[in-house]
Amino acid sequence: MAVQSGSIDLQTRGHADIVDITTRVQRLITESDLSAGIATVFCSSSTSAVTTLEYESGCVRDLQRLFDEIVSPEQAYAHNARWGDGNGHSHIRAALLKPSLTIPFQDKRLTLGTWQQIVYIDFDNRPRQRSLIVQLIGD
Amino acid sequence: MAVQSGSIDLQTRGHADIVDITTRVQRLITESDLSAGIATVFCSSSTSAVTTLEYESGCVRDLQRLFDEIVSPEQAYAHNARWGDGNGHSHIRAALLKPSLTIPFQDKRLTLGTWQQIVYIDFDNRPRQRSLIVQLIGD
Amino acid sequence: MAVQSGSIDLQTRGHADIVDITTRVQRLITESDLSAGIATVFCSSSTSAVTTLEYESGCVRDLQRLFDEIVSPEQAYAHNARWGDGNGHSHIRAALLKPSLTIPFQDKRLTLGTWQQIVYIDFDNRPRQRSLIVQLIGD
Repeated sequence: MAVQSGSIDLQTRGHADIVDITTRVQRLITESDLSAGIATVFCSSSTSAVTTLEYESGCVRDLQRLFDEIVSPEQAYAHNARWGDGNGHSHIRAALLKPSLTIPFQDKRLTLGTWQQIVYIDFDNRPRQRSLIVQLIGD
Repeated sequence: MAVQSGSIDLQTRGHADIVDITTRVQRLITESDLSAGIATVFCSSSTSAVTTLEYESGCVRDLQRLFDEIVSPEQAYAHNARWGDGNGHSHIRAALLKPSLTIPFQDKRLTLGTWQQIVYIDFDNRPRQRSLIVQLIGD
Repeated sequence: MAVQSGSIDLQTRGHADIVDITTRVQRLITESDLSAGIATVFCSSSTSAVTTLEYESGCVRDLQRLFDEIVSPEQAYAHNARWGDGNGHSHIRAALLKPSLTIPFQDKRLTLGTWQQIVYIDFDNRPRQRSLIVQLIGD
């Protein structure tokens, strides 16, 4: 059993930019010494989140619309009134979707479904340079 | 410390069918060699998810209604326009609720509350045969 | 590699009381024998949840408003009709946000962002005495 830490650097466009990071998480497992365990993908950020999605343009647009509907950027936010940075909706979307995702791996492969990709969503209201942490635990 | 992998096979009805899987996750811990650690329950699917709920008919119906309200099957979905399989809402609900849940166990027991069950929700628009992964890590 | 279990006792006010528990989770890591690994924070409850948030009064109020909007206490709930305890909305909010959060730590520090705090949200409709579980796995 061991812990192995990796990271994924990304340039995002913000505004609910949805990025497929599956290949990069899988590569960290491939290059590790571990065969079976769990991978925790974590965003060290309060305006972004991680989940899984069938990564095709339809689902990507539908998920962006969901957040426009239930956490609209058009509303007034107490965060914006206090800090003036205009990304109150980004914080609330990130808190709802959460910054962490734990995925099992077996025989050095993520146990994802055929149509299931790991996606990072940057909810901030501007392009950002991001670094995600991938913590592997297993043997 | 060891990793031990198990699975749970399920026949679901789809359409936000909510299934209590607590006893089956607990059984995998009971039958394992592990006493303390974490159990990661994972859906290898982009149209289903896992969470906890007081598993009684009222909460089950209320949770189903929430998804009808915030991710309605009656809306137009870009996924459906592109692929024609009619389960755009299933994908978006699953991405919002997420496919992974990690639960501690101690003294070979899940640390759930008295009224808290682990539930698998199949959001797809038809009955499905499913297999969930339960990855145990501990000692 | 080892598993180390800790807990955090809290008195909450209920009604979507949002409590910053970052310092207390960090202290359990500091006092453990572990340097690198993952911390799983878990609520043994069906009416509360855990996520991360920039813990300032604006974001706190904005997140509380989100839940008032999408899971309103003013609606009728089948849970309330059956059990009469008036906290149907608390159960549904908790199921949506989920009771578990897994965060990596490295060099004995949680890998949180600068503006990112771990928050416990008690959705129940009355003050509660709570105990959260923090399961550390690492070496």
